[in-house]
Parts: sequence; C-alpha cells; structure tokens
Amino acid sequence: MGGPLITGKVLFPSFANWIVWCQKQQHRCKFYDNRHANRKCVSQHFQVMNLRDGTVALQEGKPGEMTCKSQRLMLLTGLICPASPGCYHYMPYTVRSMEKLIKLIDQEMQAVGGQKLNMPTLCSAELWRASERWELMGNELFRLTDRHNKQFCLGPTHEEAITNLIASQSYLSHKQLPLLLYQVTRKFRDEPKPRFGLLRGREFYMKDMYTFDASKEAALKTYALVCNAYYNILNRLGLPFVKVQAATGNIGGTLSHEFQLPADIGEDQLMICTNCDFSANTETIDPSKVHCPVCEGKLMEKRGIEVGHTFYLGTKYSSVFNTLVNTAENKPVMAEMGCYGLGVSRILAASIEVLSTEDAIRWPNLIAPYQICLIPPKRGSKEEKGAMLVEELYDSIAQAVPHLIDEIVLDDRTELTIGKRLKDADKRGYPYVIIAGKKIVDVPSLFEVRNQNTGEILFLTREAIVDLLSKVHTS
Amino acid sequence: MGGPLITGKVLFPSFANWIVWCQKQQHRCKFYDNRHANRKCVSQHFQVMNLRDGTVALQEGKPGEMTCKSQRLMLLTGLICPASPGCYHYMPYTVRSMEKLIKLIDQEMQAVGGQKLNMPTLCSAELWRASERWELMGNELFRLTDRHNKQFCLGPTHEEAITNLIASQSYLSHKQLPLLLYQVTRKFRDEPKPRFGLLRGREFYMKDMYTFDASKEAALKTYALVCNAYYNILNRLGLPFVKVQAATGNIGGTLSHEFQLPADIGEDQLMICTNCDFSANTETIDPSKVHCPVCEGKLMEKRGIEVGHTFYLGTKYSSVFNTLVNTAENKPVMAEMGCYGLGVSRILAASIEVLSTEDAIRWPNLIAPYQICLIPPKRGSKEEKGAMLVEELYDSIAQAVPHLIDEIVLDDRTELTIGKRLKDADKRGYPYVIIAGKKIVDVPSLFEVRNQNTGEILFLTREAIVDLLSKVHTS
Repeated sequence: MGGPLITGKVLFPSFANWIVWCQKQQHRCKFYDNRHANRKCVSQHFQVMNLRDGTVALQEGKPGEMTCKSQRLMLLTGLICPASPGCYHYMPYTVRSMEKLIKLIDQEMQAVGGQKLNMPTLCSAELWRASERWELMGNELFRLTDRHNKQFCLGPTHEEAITNLIASQSYLSHKQLPLLLYQVTRKFRDEPKPRFGLLRGREFYMKDMYTFDASKEAALKTYALVCNAYYNILNRLGLPFVKVQAATGNIGGTLSHEFQLPADIGEDQLMICTNCDFSANTETIDPSKVHCPVCEGKLMEKRGIEVGHTFYLGTKYSSVFNTLVNTAENKPVMAEMGCYGLGVSRILAASIEVLSTEDAIRWPNLIAPYQICLIPPKRGSKEEKGAMLVEELYDSIAQAVPHLIDEIVLDDRTELTIGKRLKDADKRGYPYVIIAGKKIVDVPSLFEVRNQNTGEILFLTREAIVDLLSKVHTS
Repeated sequence: MGGPLITGKVLFPSFANWIVWCQKQQHRCKFYDNRHANRKCVSQHFQVMNLRDGTVALQEGKPGEMTCKSQRLMLLTGLICPASPGCYHYMPYTVRSMEKLIKLIDQEMQAVGGQKLNMPTLCSAELWRASERWELMGNELFRLTDRHNKQFCLGPTHEEAITNLIASQSYLSHKQLPLLLYQVTRKFRDEPKPRFGLLRGREFYMKDMYTFDASKEAALKTYALVCNAYYNILNRLGLPFVKVQAATGNIGGTLSHEFQLPADIGEDQLMICTNCDFSANTETIDPSKVHCPVCEGKLMEKRGIEVGHTFYLGTKYSSVFNTLVNTAENKPVMAEMGCYGLGVSRILAASIEVLSTEDAIRWPNLIAPYQICLIPPKRGSKEEKGAMLVEELYDSIAQAVPHLIDEIVLDDRTELTIGKRLKDADKRGYPYVIIAGKKIVDVPSLFEVRNQNTGEILFLTREAIVDLLSKVHTS
C-alpha cells in the first residue's frame, strides 16, 4: 500500500520517541534533478505565452477591440493570463511584485497605527440591506444563495461588516482611538464592462482601511494621517500622482479624495488648476467651468487612473449599526468613521501603464519582480568561458548583499544570443541587466552593467558590481 | 473645497517640477498622538471580546452545542470573531500568525522548486462540467450567476483551472519539468455543518500545489518531493503528525496520503500499526480489521485532524483538457499530475488544538503572533520606577536583535496588577513573558523571564536577556 513512496508515520507512546523521529526527518530534501542548487534560472521560470498567431488572446471585449499598454505588455510578457472576463491568473512574476507592494503598504499603514485583519468574502444580505446598499449596488454585486437559502454577496468593500463588528464590542475606550483597521484581500465587482486587464477587473486585490474616532475633528485628523500615508506609498514607488476632490458615490459620506495617476487611458476626467492647489474629478464640478472655483485661475484637463480613494464617512454607517465609542470623558458617542481604499492589483497595472515604453515594461524599483538579470555568453561563442564568471558573480552578490539573494535571475538559455536575451530582459523590466559581453575576456574581466531605468551603461569588475548593488534598496 | 485638509496635487509641466514636489512630501508623517513612537502597546491592540454573559457567542450550531478547545480559546482571546456560519473575521494576532505560516510554507514550497501564482476565485461552470465535478460536488459548491447569466462556482480547489491553463500553452519543454505551481488563497466550500471554528469553515485559506511531469515515474518522484516538503513544514512547526494512506474522494487519482495531527476531536479515524510503518485512514481499509495488512501487527486507533492531503492524479485531469508536456525525446505526452493541499487557516487552529492547555493557548514558536510580552510594574506600586527599565529593555532588544523589533509587545495597562496581566499573557501564548517584578529594585535590576513553552523561569539582567533572546529564531 502506498507503493514506492515514503509511508512515514509517527507513534506517540512517548514525547521522546517523537522527538527522535523528528530529528531523523530533519535531513532536508534537496532539489533532486540537475538544477543549480540555489540559483534561479530563466529556463525554469514558468512564463505563460498568450501570443497566438501574433495576436494577444483576450477573454474580454471583441478581438481587435482597444486595449491599453499595460494590458498588452502584461499579456505579452506572460505576467497575467485571462481566465474569464475580468478575471486573470496572476503568474509568478506578478505575485512577487504584488507581495512586495503589499509589504510596502503594510509598512505605511502600520506606521500610522493601522492594525491588519481579514474579513470574510461572503457578506450576508441582512447587513447590506441594513445599509440599503443591497438594492443600491444593483448588478454590480455578485450575489449567491447558500444551501440553506441564505443570501450573500461577495464583498466589494466592507463598511457594513466592520461597522457591525465594532458595534458588537463593548464600547471602545478612548485610549484605543483613533482605531485604524485594514485588510488586503480579494474583492469582487460584477463590472458591466471589465477591461484594461488589471485596471478594471471583476476580481481584484484591494487594501481597505476603516477608521473610528470620537469626534469629527479627530476623524478629520485621522483622514489627513491616512492621506499622508498614501502620499508616502506613492512617493516611495516613484509614481507621479495627483490628489483630487472626488464624489462619494455609493460609499457615501461628505468628503472624499481620489489619488490619480495621470494617463491618457485613465477613465476619470480631472480638472487641475494651473495657478493654485485646487484639483478635482469633473464629477464634482460644473463641466462647463474653465476657471478654478478657488482662485479663478485657468483649469487644465487631464485624464487619470484612480489608484486610491478616501472618504470621511461621518456617522453614515455607525448610525445604522449603532456603533458607539467613548469620548475622553467616557461618554459613548456615535463613531465618526473614515474609509480608505487602495487598488493593489490596479497599482501594479497602473505603474506599468505610466512608466513603460510601448515595448518594454518599467516597474517602480521597489516592486520589480526581480532586481537583477544576469546574462552569460552564448554557448559555443568565443566568450563562452565567461559563463563561469557569471555564476561566480551570482554567488558573490548573493553572499555580499544578503537582501538581494532572492532578487537575481540567471538567463541560462545559452542557446540564444546575448542580443535576444537582452531584448527579453529589457521587455520584462529588470532594473539591472548584467551581461558577460566582449569585455568578459579582458584582464581583469569586465561585465556590462545596464541600469534600465536611467539608461546608464557601465563596464565593471565583479567587485565594483557588488559595491554598486549593495546600494540597491529593496524596501 | 476639501476643508482644512491637505489638498495636495501635482502639475506636470516638467519631470523636474514633479521631483521637487515629491521631495517636499518626503517629511514622513509621525503618529500624531501621545503613543510611544515605535513601541507596540497592548492598550492599543484591538482585541475583540466574544464573551457575553459568560458564554461565547457562536454563529454556528445551537447555544451550548459542543465546540472544541481551539475554537473556545480563539474566541475567548479574540483571535477570531464570528461573521456568519463557517465564516470568521481573523483579528490582527491571527493575521500575523497566518502571515508567518505562509512565509514558512513559501520557503519550503520554493525549496523544492515551487513557483507561486494566484488563480481567480470565480471558476466557470464550463470547466467544471468538463471534469464532471460540477454535478459531482453537489451542494458543497457555492454557485452563482453573473450579470450576463453565466454560471460560476467559488473555487474550493483549482485542478480544472490550472490544467486548462497549462493546456492553453505550447507544450512545456522537458527542461521545465517537473513544473510545480502553487498558490495560497481563500477557498470556499458550502459545508453542511461548519463547525470547530477555523477547523471546518465555509471560507478558509489553503495552499494548493499542482505538479506536471512527463512520466508516472517522474510524477512519483515529485510526489515524494512534495511529501518531504510537508514533513519539513510540520517539523519546523514542531507539530506531532502522522502520514496515512487516504481515499482520493472527489479529487480523484490513484494514490493519496493525508497528514494528520492526532487529536481527540479529529474528524478522521486512523488505524496505525504498532509494529511497522503502516498507517491509514479507516476509509481505506475494512473497519473490522484489527491486524495490519502489511505485517499482521496490531492496529491502534487514533483520531486525527487532517492538515494536508496529497494526490497522485495521473492523467485524470490532463486527459480531459488535453494537457500535453514534452518528454526528454521531445515527444508530447499527456501530463502526469499531482495535487497537494495544506489547510493554512486549519493549521493555525489545529496547532492551538494540539499544543494548548484547557486555559492557555500555546503556539508553534515560529508562528506565535508575537515572541515577547513585557510587563511593567503596576502604577503606584513600590516597583513603579521599574517601568522605565522595561521601556529601556524594549529598546535594547529592538536595537540588539533586529529580527525581534516587530516581535515585542509592551503590556502598558499599568492600572492592572502584574498578576492579572501575566494571566492574560499566559492565555494568549507569547513564548516569552518578561516581568518587572520584585527584583527589579535589586542592584543590579533583575527581570523575571518566563519561557512559557518549557515553564522555565529565570531572573536576568537586561544584558543577559538580550543575550538569551538573540538566540530566538523567527524563521
């Protein structure tokens, strides 16, 4: 029974027996075929190919229908693969990038006191009826019925869930305020027209934060605090953005801003004053206006991709669920709330949209899937013996710069020319590409080091490369 | 417009302008109230209270219905909070623990060559009809219809999705084999009787891996490889487990094992030979058997909680979707597959179930939400000035042991006695609890250091504590 396989098992007559058994198991299984023990090789990377007969396979829209740069590049390089309209498989490079982005978001959310939780996807109809959004959201809600005939929606956002959760607690003490709770989870929206890949999907990852305060004044302070965290996130990513006044839509509340990345394919129309600080989503102003309502300066039009949205909610939800918190004087009052969204998967696509060329992906450095691609010489070329030097370089970087150990890939497809592999590396957007080219046979051996974001090319020894890379930040 | 808040915005006449603007924004916002800048304080932790009138609020089953130790302890300490039957809010400590567990699983999956992707929750009915599981799964599938009347299920597992994804590619080259793809995502199952908290929920986190090979022999090698990774994971967690032969159920295939944690409340009945290596889920053997089918030794009964399940699938799914891979001779053959599940949220609960006492949670050290809890003296006590020494200790640990920076909490609820807070810390299961007790006024000051897992108590100076803790592993 169980054939030629390990049929391990444990008997527990005593704890000591178990310990002995565990120790026997401690021989770590080594990767059993001829792969390099610890080096990551491009030939083993699973990269999907969405290209069929020169056209990209799309599940959404009609063949030949307009798409956008990020969608095209992400499909071409196999970062995503269509599953059904508005739903994508995220392939391994995308998962790496998203995990880095989530780590960065976690840092900034926790720096302002955010505590991370995780709420269910299935949200009961009852809660959504209480806030009247069950009807209001119409066809955008994915709805289902369980085996006991109870109705649920797949949460597109969690105001009801969290407000009800806080209401179920004894009143929060004033010491705990402001309470900032957030999650990073998959959200669902049955978009009438999913499009642009990860920019407008039916499943997407969102960071949603909900805040609780005891007064409007405190809630507005919290609002400013979270907006500041959003500034930090977008600045650390090096993304140009604009914060505009925005409509509150079906979330509600009385004050709202969007964080927009200017881009021609953006779905939002913005008006930005050329003279003062004013900027707005046109939803919020008379579209015929050409002058700024604050300073009468000229308004400039821009299109934008919304990557963040903040709302001061007041007591819109807390009054529905009777969610009370305590003032400094220990008096229970209706919670003053805010909610704050960041489109996590959308930021990945939007970054590519605004930073890339038509042919080559460029990532914000901090969230590039890998920082460094090493390209050894073609097999059979006269530089062939440089291959060993590239492997040594790999190991030197991994040893001298521990935070880059997991950030290097070796393009071991040495049946291809350096040129072909360089083109591929360029398209995928590794920030650093290091080539064992003609100068690898010089004494001392020199590698060609390309900073893909600045366009700078240097010829450096192994030691100089290690020195250069030790300054690369990954967080 | 926008009130007293920052109405930041960017004009982009030139890139240089934008850079200047970004630099201005670089002043990082500091947490604005009187919290300790970088110290984590229990008074600010959001801990839900599920206790009402002495009884735990359950959403599942009837009041007073049997629950289990892990569910009771997790509800009592506010690790989880019921949302709807089988669906829980994971509170911040639980999220921390789960993220640590996922990191550990990632390490072991990647050590055997696993590549991480992320597949959609919405799985089209078409795919599931192709494998005949649309009907087979019956009421356990959550099903829904989108705005265009297309049917989907919420993926409980992703054999169809991944097999179809690989089928859509040009045949994999032999170099890429074995191909091991996995994800850690939320899964859904409409359980007839959700119970035992995170042990049997309707939403849960699962690690699911799918492997592709070109021959049965290679597939069985891969099977052994992944089983070994599972050994490593459970060993690193320090969990006693048994690997048993198992039924293939509605997943299918011809060979299957389960990784079980022995526990009285386990839902699986196991038979373990007291003489040889044989062990099995009773589903796979004649229940009247009392002797081992291999050696005729005596069989011992045990109950177990299934935390992992491995399947050698053969071509069950690849033949449905025509999923081909290339042999070493470059000949396309039907892919030989395996699939491998680990219950991520279930491991959290199962660990607590098997390691805890009736009153106090014990975690596997590596995934405890925090490693260290510091308890300063009660306000107004004669040791009160020890409070400052505790804060200094906090900072010393953070400085000298960088990997523990984020692993320390300060129980600053100094209105409570040390005894009360120690009881609370014990219940929550911090591996180390450090108290400024009576000896804090000695010269030199001595802290009481409790290793909660061994029961050892030491009285140590700050320097000795830093030395001791520098040996604590967090990965």
